[in-house]
Amino acid sequence: MELFERLESNVRAYSRVFPVIFDKAKNAHQFDEAGNCYIDFFAGAGVLNFGHNNEQMKRALIDYLSEDRVTHSLDMCTTAKKIFMESFESIILKPRKMDYKMQFTGPTGTNVIEAALKLARKITGRRQVVAFTDGFHGMTLGSLACTGNQLFRNAAGVPLEHVTRVAFEGYANNGTESLDQLRTLYDDPSSGMTPPAAFLVETIQAEGGVNLASKEWLQALQSLTREFGSLLVIDDIQVGCGRTGRYFSFEGLDLDPDLICMAKGIGGYGTPMAMMLIKPEHDAWNPGEHTGTFRGQNLSFVAGTEALRYFENDKFLNEVTRKGKIIEDSLAKIVKNYSGSFCTVDKCKCPGKPPMKHRGRGMIHGLCVGNGKLAAAIVKTCFENKLIVASCGPEGRILKLIPPLTIEDKVLEEGLRIFVSALDELCK
Amino acid sequence: MELFERLESNVRAYSRVFPVIFDKAKNAHQFDEAGNCYIDFFAGAGVLNFGHNNEQMKRALIDYLSEDRVTHSLDMCTTAKKIFMESFESIILKPRKMDYKMQFTGPTGTNVIEAALKLARKITGRRQVVAFTDGFHGMTLGSLACTGNQLFRNAAGVPLEHVTRVAFEGYANNGTESLDQLRTLYDDPSSGMTPPAAFLVETIQAEGGVNLASKEWLQALQSLTREFGSLLVIDDIQVGCGRTGRYFSFEGLDLDPDLICMAKGIGGYGTPMAMMLIKPEHDAWNPGEHTGTFRGQNLSFVAGTEALRYFENDKFLNEVTRKGKIIEDSLAKIVKNYSGSFCTVDKCKCPGKPPMKHRGRGMIHGLCVGNGKLAAAIVKTCFENKLIVASCGPEGRILKLIPPLTIEDKVLEEGLRIFVSALDELCK
Amino acid sequence: MELFERLESNVRAYSRVFPVIFDKAKNAHQFDEAGNCYIDFFAGAGVLNFGHNNEQMKRALIDYLSEDRVTHSLDMCTTAKKIFMESFESIILKPRKMDYKMQFTGPTGTNVIEAALKLARKITGRRQVVAFTDGFHGMTLGSLACTGNQLFRNAAGVPLEHVTRVAFEGYANNGTESLDQLRTLYDDPSSGMTPPAAFLVETIQAEGGVNLASKEWLQALQSLTREFGSLLVIDDIQVGCGRTGRYFSFEGLDLDPDLICMAKGIGGYGTPMAMMLIKPEHDAWNPGEHTGTFRGQNLSFVAGTEALRYFENDKFLNEVTRKGKIIEDSLAKIVKNYSGSFCTVDKCKCPGKPPMKHRGRGMIHGLCVGNGKLAAAIVKTCFENKLIVASCGPEGRILKLIPPLTIEDKVLEEGLRIFVSALDELCK
Amino acid sequence: MELFERLESNVRAYSRVFPVIFDKAKNAHQFDEAGNCYIDFFAGAGVLNFGHNNEQMKRALIDYLSEDRVTHSLDMCTTAKKIFMESFESIILKPRKMDYKMQFTGPTGTNVIEAALKLARKITGRRQVVAFTDGFHGMTLGSLACTGNQLFRNAAGVPLEHVTRVAFEGYANNGTESLDQLRTLYDDPSSGMTPPAAFLVETIQAEGGVNLASKEWLQALQSLTREFGSLLVIDDIQVGCGRTGRYFSFEGLDLDPDLICMAKGIGGYGTPMAMMLIKPEHDAWNPGEHTGTFRGQNLSFVAGTEALRYFENDKFLNEVTRKGKIIEDSLAKIVKNYSGSFCTVDKCKCPGKPPMKHRGRGMIHGLCVGNGKLAAAIVKTCFENKLIVASCGPEGRILKLIPPLTIEDKVLEEGLRIFVSALDELCK
Repeated sequence: MELFERLESNVRAYSRVFPVIFDKAKNAHQFDEAGNCYIDFFAGAGVLNFGHNNEQMKRALIDYLSEDRVTHSLDMCTTAKKIFMESFESIILKPRKMDYKMQFTGPTGTNVIEAALKLARKITGRRQVVAFTDGFHGMTLGSLACTGNQLFRNAAGVPLEHVTRVAFEGYANNGTESLDQLRTLYDDPSSGMTPPAAFLVETIQAEGGVNLASKEWLQALQSLTREFGSLLVIDDIQVGCGRTGRYFSFEGLDLDPDLICMAKGIGGYGTPMAMMLIKPEHDAWNPGEHTGTFRGQNLSFVAGTEALRYFENDKFLNEVTRKGKIIEDSLAKIVKNYSGSFCTVDKCKCPGKPPMKHRGRGMIHGLCVGNGKLAAAIVKTCFENKLIVASCGPEGRILKLIPPLTIEDKVLEEGLRIFVSALDELCK
Repeated sequence: MELFERLESNVRAYSRVFPVIFDKAKNAHQFDEAGNCYIDFFAGAGVLNFGHNNEQMKRALIDYLSEDRVTHSLDMCTTAKKIFMESFESIILKPRKMDYKMQFTGPTGTNVIEAALKLARKITGRRQVVAFTDGFHGMTLGSLACTGNQLFRNAAGVPLEHVTRVAFEGYANNGTESLDQLRTLYDDPSSGMTPPAAFLVETIQAEGGVNLASKEWLQALQSLTREFGSLLVIDDIQVGCGRTGRYFSFEGLDLDPDLICMAKGIGGYGTPMAMMLIKPEHDAWNPGEHTGTFRGQNLSFVAGTEALRYFENDKFLNEVTRKGKIIEDSLAKIVKNYSGSFCTVDKCKCPGKPPMKHRGRGMIHGLCVGNGKLAAAIVKTCFENKLIVASCGPEGRILKLIPPLTIEDKVLEEGLRIFVSALDELCK
Repeated sequence: MELFERLESNVRAYSRVFPVIFDKAKNAHQFDEAGNCYIDFFAGAGVLNFGHNNEQMKRALIDYLSEDRVTHSLDMCTTAKKIFMESFESIILKPRKMDYKMQFTGPTGTNVIEAALKLARKITGRRQVVAFTDGFHGMTLGSLACTGNQLFRNAAGVPLEHVTRVAFEGYANNGTESLDQLRTLYDDPSSGMTPPAAFLVETIQAEGGVNLASKEWLQALQSLTREFGSLLVIDDIQVGCGRTGRYFSFEGLDLDPDLICMAKGIGGYGTPMAMMLIKPEHDAWNPGEHTGTFRGQNLSFVAGTEALRYFENDKFLNEVTRKGKIIEDSLAKIVKNYSGSFCTVDKCKCPGKPPMKHRGRGMIHGLCVGNGKLAAAIVKTCFENKLIVASCGPEGRILKLIPPLTIEDKVLEEGLRIFVSALDELCK
Repeated sequence: MELFERLESNVRAYSRVFPVIFDKAKNAHQFDEAGNCYIDFFAGAGVLNFGHNNEQMKRALIDYLSEDRVTHSLDMCTTAKKIFMESFESIILKPRKMDYKMQFTGPTGTNVIEAALKLARKITGRRQVVAFTDGFHGMTLGSLACTGNQLFRNAAGVPLEHVTRVAFEGYANNGTESLDQLRTLYDDPSSGMTPPAAFLVETIQAEGGVNLASKEWLQALQSLTREFGSLLVIDDIQVGCGRTGRYFSFEGLDLDPDLICMAKGIGGYGTPMAMMLIKPEHDAWNPGEHTGTFRGQNLSFVAGTEALRYFENDKFLNEVTRKGKIIEDSLAKIVKNYSGSFCTVDKCKCPGKPPMKHRGRGMIHGLCVGNGKLAAAIVKTCFENKLIVASCGPEGRILKLIPPLTIEDKVLEEGLRIFVSALDELCK
């Protein structure tokens, strides 16, 4: 560890929370150099939906490598890319009657968000974009302007412009009022506000504290975009790829987004990849207008194609829903048992939310424990007991449970047991 | 190919220039689905310094995968990362008496540039940054503001601010005059200009047209940064990792950059990775101030460690220099033979440069053929003759030759022969 | 008139609404070149609180001129300035127990607003400023960013930044909700919003449609500024100087603004002048940091000193209140008589306000007639009948009645009679 | 004076340099309350071209006031305005074969500059504007972005954007090189720079240090604007209205500006006024797009019309030229006598200019004395000897001599004598 302190920048973060050196990993387990085994309820911040070193993907990757098939190719055509695109069309798009074109951007979430912002601005000829309280969209200047977190924003060093911040559903008890007010503002030539190029929204704000938007709110949002000629851009980077029990987080909500941003889980194996889905009528790019060296990651196409296989029928998603219920039940019990016990610790200042609350869908769940110090203590205790779990949201008050979707029942239950016992220890 | 037209966004670019589907690749050869073999003088835009599917790296990757060692780990500590960092310190930094800390950002060039801009602004408390004419630094909003190319800039959709554009050496016959003028402006309280947070410079502008800065000019630049408390940030993304016959492009120029941005070749196998080197006294980050999901790419650490081995002694770099000479001689001959023949085509408008010129160092060479149409015709003819080469610079007037550093002599010579014959065909 | 069309820019506006050439004027009467006499319910957009060519001021001006006393003096000390400042202190500030320093900026409203924005930003070290829907603060870039009207904003030609737009009281039925939401947002480190340098507010939005803020709302606003270390900046340019029946519009509302912006009426005779009142603890200017050629208008000091005499006792303000009541009664009758009759014309889209409503205080009153076309027709008919009245607010739906405070009762009543008869003509 | 310290903001500036209370003034004399008489070589920062309380204008103003003719009228038509416009057309425009429309903006220089920036941006659809080193254009946010002085710029509190700063002629020995370089940059699609909406230039930078542009340089500038579809905007606020021996400062230079900004002297008597001259083909305003309460200053029209009479024939301008020669000769002698003597004081850091130099045209002359402290000492000594003169330029190193154009010979000579004797005292 001394080496990391000496040679790695102070910016390092997770290695401070989980101060061991990891060496091996399999499905929902991580192993450190000393051979200790940890249960992973974090899944690489939502990347490892299909577990660490997924066997199917591993074999595909080794085969691909062994045969000297092309690894790096910018945005040239490759066989691996062709197969991925065909699979995505046949497995994901067609059964959902979705008609989209694919753009592979630089292989990180922030790159695909930047591409979406550019495209929305190009299509509409407008500058301003609406982003929401507690939204998280990335670290580069365009995405960062859309991100709410002040620690990140302060690091910009320049003003973050061209973004209007609007209250997400549930924020300060807000329903659709803030959307209704936008309508009034956009209709009024003296309001000082004009309709935006796009509304950039996560259906579930994962980093922001596992805040869920309802169907009603999202439909009100979609209506607003349609009324004013704005684009509806869904950031499905953390909650897409099956996390919610559906392939896309917005399925079943009668939404028809103009642009969809994907990353994290799409590459399957933790191999970097980012993709934007574009409604054909919005594919207004000129060739080469948005580029990037690593935008054609063949290893990610190979593992990502294997990942798509999980969605050939409903079995996998049903399992996600079933296991999500296990997490939910466990958290419901915690809320019931500990809701009163928090009177002794710092009051939750989580805006407009009661001090003890859980929320989630599929296999993403958040437990707001009222204050960041307690949440940090829980994370620490869990890790000492060999469970990797992390906090999120304003001041880190929310514990976020996002195990691999492929986690075995008994590992899930063991993880939940460690989690509960940490609360037992710290909250009684 | 129809599939790509139907399903991939119009933004696709290289697949239009090289309209085949690639399947396999080895060192300096790429093979399409029909089995055609192409010589690669493009190396994935400067990523594949060590060739396609480098055998050493391939074995290391397959071993790593086979043993289920951790693949995705955010910025947690891993064994693979530790070994990479140790190797980088012992092989690269120590022998060069360089003292830097490492930051692994999102694994693309633009992400590391954005991080450098943030850090420089944080350290100095200043907003403005100087970037140079024809500079290329990436596609996300912060980097894009530093990039010169108007096609890319126009796609931003918002004003690109906080960057002062200054003439690079040789631009419009400019020597150090534009640097001298900056000194006057910064010294003068009525000039309307104040010293910047950083000067962001490529020692060789690769995308910008293979423009080389001299030792004198770079030292004048460094003096200016020192005088005014600005940071010297070197973007070594395309020309680092041995490309110039030195590990860093700025070696031997008596430069002492504050921040060094690396990407492309650093991951070895075309596996994405980006790294910033930070002088310890400038490591002003707070933990977690700049993050990113894919910032700890273990497959890239594994392949990247193998790549570092090439620099354990001088042998490899000497080879780069030797092979660079072969390219140079070939281009010198072209310039000699064809300099007159261009009178019949559109005059070169390459600012301040004569219509026929080659320039380069190590194994990056540019041939300015005077106009973009001719350059495009040469690219096309070469590809028909199974050579992959691309153009760059203003209006694409410059052909850039950047084969893998590991290319075999006879493949290099065959590639050059195809290149020369394309000129024979098009310029006589 | 032909001369104006030929030689004056297309930007001319009021001369299109009132297409005659005015030559003389006295108190609430204007006379055109043909000798026609018009009653003035517009008072030079709120400048002429003390009537056209006020006799007292006129004599003082002529005396001043006759004696060759200094007219132009930049910000040097002059006797006229000294007397104005002494009078302002003794007549206005001291009796109200207000402790402020005076800054004379360039003699237009927009200049004093720009100065206030600079000073608030300097004091707080923050960039962002809150301005309100329908707010009007001027035409230069800093003030324009705070102005809501889209016609004006679109003319900027550059993005208008560093301003957060918030709903004014009554906007879309908004009470203090939008202020409460700001509190939540500023308290939350993930909201993406930070407290502003200042809240810039008109207690009555005159140009914006005669929208009145209540004591409760303004106090909620003041509390918010105190809580977050922001400045409360009151723009009293149009409704100060006695217009509301008090000298300052915010008197009696328990407000203690940090900066007060004055212009229009302050110079008394229609002679240009603008003044900022600064709490002594906020007088953070360095000498000469904000300058302007015409910032020491001695003719305005002379006439302005005469204007202050009106406030030596309550008599004048009581008259304002009494005459204001006459206007109010008249408008109340109109609302009563015509509220139903508007069903036949375009529905009022005035945000959150019913189609027929009057509002006002002292001698500023607005009548929302539901649509801009009707309002324009009323203005035209009134002018044909020799009454000068203008519309304001979103799409010009509100008729604004702001006669000189010195208007004689019979002239006021004659004006109201013409106004009512225009409605009779157009609305029955 | 105590009153001013107590009640006037710290921002006051000239009253610190000239710490007396002025009461009366006539032509080139100012009188303080104690009856002391000062010679005025400052003319209200270039406003009082026709002297303090010009007798002709005074009579016209008193007559106008006495007859109750309309004083305040926004932008309505008035007889006084009509007469001014007719006079301006017949006396100024027609004899010079100039075809322009007039726009009366808020009556300060910064307001007319803001209007010009808006109009240029509207016409071209471009954002960026070129302004020059040491340029001074005003204090509101749009104009301030064009102003070079760092004291003023720092007070903005927000980034000053959308302006490219370019070296003025003579700056750091710059001729037309910086203009030539712009041509290269605008021609090059990879330079990162695009042609601006406008070039905003003073033919003589008065506040900036009395820097004169030559005919050659200004024509090179005009060619550049024509080539790239940019507007040529001349800020003639301080050096127009006869100051240079011509009515417009740019006469005789074969220039054909698209927009001309006037203020200061145009109102004649120190009464505020600002006017933009617009080539008819550029009058792209919509009605009311740029407004302002005080844009129709009838007192200024009345005095301004009298001012125009001075230009009915050449007599007055010939006198300006003749008296300018007296100033020039006097300064030439100073330069000759004192050039060597400055070796002992701080070296002039005036960029690219030798330590002792005079420059000027007509009746605006600057003497660079090499350092700001010496200049301040000269100003102080002159004032003690009853001469009002001020310094300007970077660090206030330049003494600017701009007496009223109407100054009597013997007063001019007496002023110059005081000025020389201050140098005698401080430089020997």
